[in-house]
Amino acid sequence: MSRIGILGATGYTALELLKILARHPQAEVTTLTTRQENSPHLSDVHPSLAGLFDLRCENLSPEDVGRRCDIVFCALPHTASMEAVPQLLDAGCRVVDLSADYRLSDPGVYETWYGHVHTDPTRLSSTVYGLPELFSDQIGSADLVANPGCYTSTSILGLAPFLAAGVIEPNGIVIDAKSGVSGAGRKPKLGTLFAECNESVTAYGIGNHRHTPEIEQVLSDVCGTPVQVAFNPHLMPMDRGILCSMYPRLKQPMSEDDLLELARSFYQDQPFVRVSSQIPATKNVAHTNFCDLSVRLNRDQLVVFSATDNLIKGASGVAVQNMNLLLGLDQTLGMLSFV
Amino acid sequence: MSRIGILGATGYTALELLKILARHPQAEVTTLTTRQENSPHLSDVHPSLAGLFDLRCENLSPEDVGRRCDIVFCALPHTASMEAVPQLLDAGCRVVDLSADYRLSDPGVYETWYGHVHTDPTRLSSTVYGLPELFSDQIGSADLVANPGCYTSTSILGLAPFLAAGVIEPNGIVIDAKSGVSGAGRKPKLGTLFAECNESVTAYGIGNHRHTPEIEQVLSDVCGTPVQVAFNPHLMPMDRGILCSMYPRLKQPMSEDDLLELARSFYQDQPFVRVSSQIPATKNVAHTNFCDLSVRLNRDQLVVFSATDNLIKGASGVAVQNMNLLLGLDQTLGMLSFV
Amino acid sequence: MSRIGILGATGYTALELLKILARHPQAEVTTLTTRQENSPHLSDVHPSLAGLFDLRCENLSPEDVGRRCDIVFCALPHTASMEAVPQLLDAGCRVVDLSADYRLSDPGVYETWYGHVHTDPTRLSSTVYGLPELFSDQIGSADLVANPGCYTSTSILGLAPFLAAGVIEPNGIVIDAKSGVSGAGRKPKLGTLFAECNESVTAYGIGNHRHTPEIEQVLSDVCGTPVQVAFNPHLMPMDRGILCSMYPRLKQPMSEDDLLELARSFYQDQPFVRVSSQIPATKNVAHTNFCDLSVRLNRDQLVVFSATDNLIKGASGVAVQNMNLLLGLDQTLGMLSFV
Amino acid sequence: MSRIGILGATGYTALELLKILARHPQAEVTTLTTRQENSPHLSDVHPSLAGLFDLRCENLSPEDVGRRCDIVFCALPHTASMEAVPQLLDAGCRVVDLSADYRLSDPGVYETWYGHVHTDPTRLSSTVYGLPELFSDQIGSADLVANPGCYTSTSILGLAPFLAAGVIEPNGIVIDAKSGVSGAGRKPKLGTLFAECNESVTAYGIGNHRHTPEIEQVLSDVCGTPVQVAFNPHLMPMDRGILCSMYPRLKQPMSEDDLLELARSFYQDQPFVRVSSQIPATKNVAHTNFCDLSVRLNRDQLVVFSATDNLIKGASGVAVQNMNLLLGLDQTLGMLSFV
Repeated sequence: MSRIGILGATGYTALELLKILARHPQAEVTTLTTRQENSPHLSDVHPSLAGLFDLRCENLSPEDVGRRCDIVFCALPHTASMEAVPQLLDAGCRVVDLSADYRLSDPGVYETWYGHVHTDPTRLSSTVYGLPELFSDQIGSADLVANPGCYTSTSILGLAPFLAAGVIEPNGIVIDAKSGVSGAGRKPKLGTLFAECNESVTAYGIGNHRHTPEIEQVLSDVCGTPVQVAFNPHLMPMDRGILCSMYPRLKQPMSEDDLLELARSFYQDQPFVRVSSQIPATKNVAHTNFCDLSVRLNRDQLVVFSATDNLIKGASGVAVQNMNLLLGLDQTLGMLSFV
Repeated sequence: MSRIGILGATGYTALELLKILARHPQAEVTTLTTRQENSPHLSDVHPSLAGLFDLRCENLSPEDVGRRCDIVFCALPHTASMEAVPQLLDAGCRVVDLSADYRLSDPGVYETWYGHVHTDPTRLSSTVYGLPELFSDQIGSADLVANPGCYTSTSILGLAPFLAAGVIEPNGIVIDAKSGVSGAGRKPKLGTLFAECNESVTAYGIGNHRHTPEIEQVLSDVCGTPVQVAFNPHLMPMDRGILCSMYPRLKQPMSEDDLLELARSFYQDQPFVRVSSQIPATKNVAHTNFCDLSVRLNRDQLVVFSATDNLIKGASGVAVQNMNLLLGLDQTLGMLSFV
Repeated sequence: MSRIGILGATGYTALELLKILARHPQAEVTTLTTRQENSPHLSDVHPSLAGLFDLRCENLSPEDVGRRCDIVFCALPHTASMEAVPQLLDAGCRVVDLSADYRLSDPGVYETWYGHVHTDPTRLSSTVYGLPELFSDQIGSADLVANPGCYTSTSILGLAPFLAAGVIEPNGIVIDAKSGVSGAGRKPKLGTLFAECNESVTAYGIGNHRHTPEIEQVLSDVCGTPVQVAFNPHLMPMDRGILCSMYPRLKQPMSEDDLLELARSFYQDQPFVRVSSQIPATKNVAHTNFCDLSVRLNRDQLVVFSATDNLIKGASGVAVQNMNLLLGLDQTLGMLSFV
Repeated sequence: MSRIGILGATGYTALELLKILARHPQAEVTTLTTRQENSPHLSDVHPSLAGLFDLRCENLSPEDVGRRCDIVFCALPHTASMEAVPQLLDAGCRVVDLSADYRLSDPGVYETWYGHVHTDPTRLSSTVYGLPELFSDQIGSADLVANPGCYTSTSILGLAPFLAAGVIEPNGIVIDAKSGVSGAGRKPKLGTLFAECNESVTAYGIGNHRHTPEIEQVLSDVCGTPVQVAFNPHLMPMDRGILCSMYPRLKQPMSEDDLLELARSFYQDQPFVRVSSQIPATKNVAHTNFCDLSVRLNRDQLVVFSATDNLIKGASGVAVQNMNLLLGLDQTLGMLSFV
């Protein structure tokens, strides 16, 4: 039984982490943190967890947390994470960081997109990118795993098979991404009020969404040539779920069957990617760690669809997948199997 | 053509007022206020109004607004309203106040429920309560009309016929009220975030919701004897609409037909109350100034149902109805008829 | 490992049963039925289950199913169930029946409310009512368990502590129940179309909803005196969840604290009932087998709130709870614990 | 005052037509049809219209309707419309056809996409396409107007300025269209049940949606060269609204400001198209006849956004706009102005 901590326990990703860990046979959550001084009981912060944990959220230093835990999930905002992670590692625990701080390998790219100088730049190039479908062999032995962004992993999982096989052009890939509102976090803002989002669909962050360089970096690694995407996120009136509709150009004409077969073959050993001839719907992956994948030819335009639950496969589920790999466990433990 | 002003133009009630007034043949909106200093254009505050008004929201004093307008809708928060209203009246305009500040006739009751001493107490007893279905004869000649609360008017319209006829007991009336989220206003709060409200139903303010004394005051006036209700508001995952399911005790057994007939007769001259044998649905009154009404006998328990759009009949629509009466116009002008 | 079958695998309750059983360490689903002739693969019927089961839905007789399985969940419509259940039992398996056919102990009451003569009347009086919080000692040794209705169990769990203690009047209890749309099933109907239900709240079945006699029967058993309720179901624009707001009359004044303490004591050994001073929200119990419970005093009117997920604690979760008891397992197995 | 009829009064487009016509100063609805034999009262078919019309829906022949009316809105399904329209015209009335039957000028294209031989092919080439922003000069004198599809007009209005100016390539235009569920009509189907659509986003009809040839035909007319699009519709969990995110390739680099200016200039005389630097949201056009338009450059990829209410600007609002033009009235009458 490993001792687990969560830095920043009041948000939605922490909530989903805790729901998964409540069922996990090899993980015992021992430590939760918040910046609030009054040490609220977890069931007051997240009433849905009442009866599952008898824990308080404490205002603890990263060192204290690191000493108490074997694995720490860092669910702090970006910039806060790069302060805490070195302290956690120094204290001797291993870390899955859910922020964006360790995802980009180049500190200059980080500074460009996040508007902050990175204070822990030397660690960037050696941090493992925590998308197990692509990098599982590097994750097991790591001390620090950078958990991917939700749009990022959904986009990457859809495009990787076709870029790796070299059947699509690596540039000019249009990604039309549609996300539920929980992706915007739990901090009260006008734009995420119910009466603003409900019965509405809109786009945002066109050209400047921070998942863009992350998608391009990982996909460039996958295919060994620079990948360039036009990433276009949209906000949907639903709690959770991401559907990416992606429009790459085929280098040569191919049939839908051949494209599906290529994707199936690419993911044949991956328990959490489901390739199907049916177009995915976010409802079918909600509350699961699955990524559903399909393709269509719209005349000669290839369309790749991928769907995830942004809070699970897009955040907390893949984080537990990474934890399992860190601990040498089956990556599905606690999510599909329970032995 | 009357000159219209709105104090506090950035909220949902102001938005709905403006949508109605855009179509009104006898009202010209001339003045809008906000506490923001940068005088934002209305179409930046409410993008849905682009092309309908070419106005800015200005940081103006109530006196200035009063001098520029014939009628002012005061859409300020409570306590702010009781400061502005005397100044508006002194400046010579007539006022429809959408806050709670002038609804309760007894300043002591106000203080008990709102936790503030009323600073304009002498005006309370002479202010007209702006529910035209009950008080239209007093509204036309008033200078100040207190626009009812959304739960209040929905509850009152449902119960008034039966209390006035003396067929139900005036005490122990259970009101189970269900409202859309827009009723909570446009200020960002955790509890009204999309990802908190969506896919959830809950109750709040049991025993201390401020619409309670307002319902009791008006219904007591209607039937000439003290009325006592247990008012229980619930939050629904939808933008707008209120359904009140009300459980009074019949003094004598009556048939559904007789009860419906009693309600139809009570509202026979009222263009905005629709009595039907069908149970109302909030969708059928959404974006309208109608209140739909029906009854059921559940064995010997009477159930009265009333439904409104909380932003229209519950706020901005009834406010225009009141404006029409102040101006000596047909009360339906701009909402049902246009001549 | 027990062999599990589901009769009627295409609906929402079967879908939720399968999601739970996919995680259950002691249950292996072997048999699924449908009336469709083409034996569709489960992942075509329920795409969300792809990768979890490799099973087809077959058009099998109850006898065949009974012979292949240790436990069968019967998720057929009422009247179809009373034909299948005797055959299942004769074939030697044990049955959790999710229809209404075996819930009422009096065949005359069944005929009155369901409009059909019961064809298996002699079995009614001996069938165990599958609400483990009240009847767990009878469930373990049963061959047939009548799984409760969703509104029923939510209402009963809220009222039982207070009726058992004799602190509320057993008659005239108003139940204002609010349910998500999945409760209406998966058969296409005008009234459950998205564009009809969304952004709408309404009531239905006032005075004739079939969960009424079930609530009264069980609660009368609980307190040993006839209980009479006015049950008023409402339809909410959400997928899942029930909130019951219940208005019984206290026999004597009591404090909220004493009422809560009474409920806590009543459920002290029940892992799936959470009594709290906070008003429950359906979101906090969604996708769980919990029933959340609280009380409020609205002046002198007691309000009891109970919330469940209508598809889990209201149907498929409690069915697995019953299965665990039939198998002599911990009732939380597969839902809270996995050992 | 013109006498107005609606063929097929039970669907959502008829409902929205009636809501608009209820406020129209020059139109009197006299005749409504249904295939139901019992002549239901309109308020039973559409409870939201109670109190606005005292009309029944009758099973009348097109000839009878044509003789009673000056203008008939034909809201029948495709193929039914091409049978009724000739009879309506022969009876002497003018027709706005909301079906797809008269939108495509080539009967062969119709047969290819709709799978039916057109029975009134000679009329196709002379029918006016009822998109007033492009064809208002032809509409006024027409007897038959083919009202555009909802996706169609939203897509066309967004792309037309740029194709007409020749600044984008006319082929390979990716349209990612997102629609509310009301676009799928009011006939009960599994796929449009609340519990299937809610909390879900998916795509459908990729490569075979029937609005494709309509978009291509009209845009080819606009720019005088064949236009080819990849049209990709998606279903959103909301009642109404369409957002089209469109990805054409610029022939030469241009700035966002120049692109916006081009669109503003193209629509300078159009009261219902609002060009803005803000990305449109469907909520801002809901329940209005506006089409909101904006552009973004995502690095060098142009993105054009257009948003409408699919039931208003996408169907019933533009139909009234067409009626106004047929009657020689201001096209905004009854929708923006009332004089």
